Amino acid sequence: MGEHVIICEVGPRDGLQIAKGIMPTEIKKRWITAMAAAGVSEIEVGSFVSPKLIPQMADTAEIVRHAVTLPGLTVVALAPNLRGAQAAHAAGAHRISIPVSVSEGHSRANLNRSPDEQVAEVGRMVEWLAAQERKVPVEASCSTSFGCSFDGRVKVSEVVRIAASLAAVGVPGLALADTVGYAHPALIREVVHAVRAEIGDVLEGLHLHDTMGLGLANALAGIEAGIRNFDSALAGLGGCPFAPGASGNIVTEDLVFMLESMGFATGIDLDRLIAARVILREGLPNETMRGGVPQAGIPKTFRHAA
Amino acid sequence: MGEHVIICEVGPRDGLQIAKGIMPTEIKKRWITAMAAAGVSEIEVGSFVSPKLIPQMADTAEIVRHAVTLPGLTVVALAPNLRGAQAAHAAGAHRISIPVSVSEGHSRANLNRSPDEQVAEVGRMVEWLAAQERKVPVEASCSTSFGCSFDGRVKVSEVVRIAASLAAVGVPGLALADTVGYAHPALIREVVHAVRAEIGDVLEGLHLHDTMGLGLANALAGIEAGIRNFDSALAGLGGCPFAPGASGNIVTEDLVFMLESMGFATGIDLDRLIAARVILREGLPNETMRGGVPQAGIPKTFRHAA
Repeated sequence: MGEHVIICEVGPRDGLQIAKGIMPTEIKKRWITAMAAAGVSEIEVGSFVSPKLIPQMADTAEIVRHAVTLPGLTVVALAPNLRGAQAAHAAGAHRISIPVSVSEGHSRANLNRSPDEQVAEVGRMVEWLAAQERKVPVEASCSTSFGCSFDGRVKVSEVVRIAASLAAVGVPGLALADTVGYAHPALIREVVHAVRAEIGDVLEGLHLHDTMGLGLANALAGIEAGIRNFDSALAGLGGCPFAPGASGNIVTEDLVFMLESMGFATGIDLDRLIAARVILREGLPNETMRGGVPQAGIPKTFRHAA
Repeated sequence: MGEHVIICEVGPRDGLQIAKGIMPTEIKKRWITAMAAAGVSEIEVGSFVSPKLIPQMADTAEIVRHAVTLPGLTVVALAPNLRGAQAAHAAGAHRISIPVSVSEGHSRANLNRSPDEQVAEVGRMVEWLAAQERKVPVEASCSTSFGCSFDGRVKVSEVVRIAASLAAVGVPGLALADTVGYAHPALIREVVHAVRAEIGDVLEGLHLHDTMGLGLANALAGIEAGIRNFDSALAGLGGCPFAPGASGNIVTEDLVFMLESMGFATGIDLDRLIAARVILREGLPNETMRGGVPQAGIPKTFRHAA
C-alpha cells in the first residue's frame, strides 16, 4: 500500500459553475453519490454565492444536505464571504473553501475586493466559525498564485505575503491555485518552497488547471515538492468565469491513473470513477468532456484496485 | 541562456502516416519550411516504407531533397530496413531513424520480425552505411519501451537487453519510445536509469505519446532524469497504425512552452511555431489538432524569444 494522496473532486463546484447548462439537482446528487462510491473521499459539492450571479449553484444547500449522508465523504463547500460561510455551516458542510486572490486584478473581478480586504473577511469567517458549537474548518484557496490573466506575473513574495496573512488570521490549511493555468513545473517548485518556508504545513494542496497542457506535469512537480492534496475535476470540467482563456481543471481520471501507477494510494477505483462520467454526460449533454484514460481505455498494464 | 534541449519534430512522419488524409507534397514542403524557420532544428520528415502500406509517405524522397536545402536543419528520415536506409541515404537524409520494437507483439505487427531479427537488420544497416562515402548516422527508436497494447507490460530487463544489443551492433544513439502512451513518470525514471546504467550516453532521447494525458509529465520526468532530446509533433498529431488506442505524440507547442518557461533553451520561436499550424490545417483539413498553448493563447507571463 503506497503513500496516500488525497484528491478533492471539484467538478460539482468549479466545473458546473462555468458550464453552459445547469445540471438538474437530482442528477447532481446521483453524480456525487457515484463518485463517492468510487472512493473519492473529498468532494467540493457547490458554492454559497448569489444564485443571480451563478445560477448553477442555487441548489448548493440541498446538495450539501444530501452529500453529508454519504458514508466516508468529506463534503466541502465554497463560500466567498461570511454570509456564505454561515449558509455552508447551516447546511452541514464538513469544510469551507474560501477563495482569496493573490493578484489585485483577479481579486477585484472575482470578489470585488482587494486581496487584503478578502484576508480580513477570511478572518471574520474564521472567528464566526470558531464561535459555533459545530466546528467546521476552513481552507483558503489562493487564486492566481502562479500568474493572472489580468495582471500577468504574480510575485512569489506576494503569494508568500497573502499566505502568511491567511495563516495569521487563523486559517489552518491552504491551497495554491493555478486559476488560469499559467504555471510550469519550475514555478510550482519555487512557489511551494517559498510558501512552505513561511507557513510550513499550513500549505496543504494544489489546485491546478490544464490550460496549457501542463496540468499533470505541474501535479508531478507538486508531488515531488511534497504536496499530497490535489483538486481535480472529472472529465477536466471547469474554468473561471473571471479568468479569460482558462480551460478546465486537471482531469481526475488521468490524475488517479498517474498517481496509482506511480505507487501512490488514492483510494479511488478508476473503473468506477470513469463509469461516473455517464451521469455527468446525462446531466450536461453539451459539455466538453476531456480525459486521456477514459477515451483511450485503461491500459492492460494498470494495476486495478482490488 | 539556459541549457539546451533538442526537440525533433516528428509530425511530418509520425503524424502524417496515420492521418486520414494525405497532405499534398507542396504543402508538406511549406509546412516543414515554416517549422524550420521557427527554429526547429531537427525534423523527421518522412519514412522510406512501401507506399502501398503507407501512401502518405510516398513522397518522402522528394521531401528529403527539399528539406536538406533548409539552413541549419537536421533532416531525419525513418527507415525500417536496409532497403529503406539505402533510399534515405540516396535522398540525402542527415540521419536515419530505425524503429526497433522491444515487445514481440508490436514487433511482429509493425515490422513482421522478432525484436532480435530487427536488431540484426539494424546491424546490416549500420554496416552498409559505414561503407558509404557520405556518412549518415542512425538512431534507433525502441518502440514499446514502456508497455505494449498487444503484450501488456514490457520487462525493464528486456528494454535494457535490446538497447544493449543495439549498442553492440554499432548504434551510436537511441531513444526510448512510449509508442502506446502507457508510461508514467516513475516508469520513465526507472527505465531511463536502467538503460543508462547499461549503455551510458548512447541513450539520448525519449519519444512520448499523450494517450493518457501524461505526456508532459513524462517529459518532465525525462528532463529530471537527464534526457535532453525529445520527439514531439505539432498539434499533437500522430499515433501508431499497429498500436490500437494510441493517440497523438506530445504537443510540440506545449513542450516548447514548458521547457522555455523552465529556463531551457529550445531555439524555437513559439509564436512562429504556432503560426505553422495554419499550413498544417491547410494540408489536413479534417485532422484533430490538439494543443493547450495554441488554443488558450501564449500567456502574458511567457518570456518570448528575442
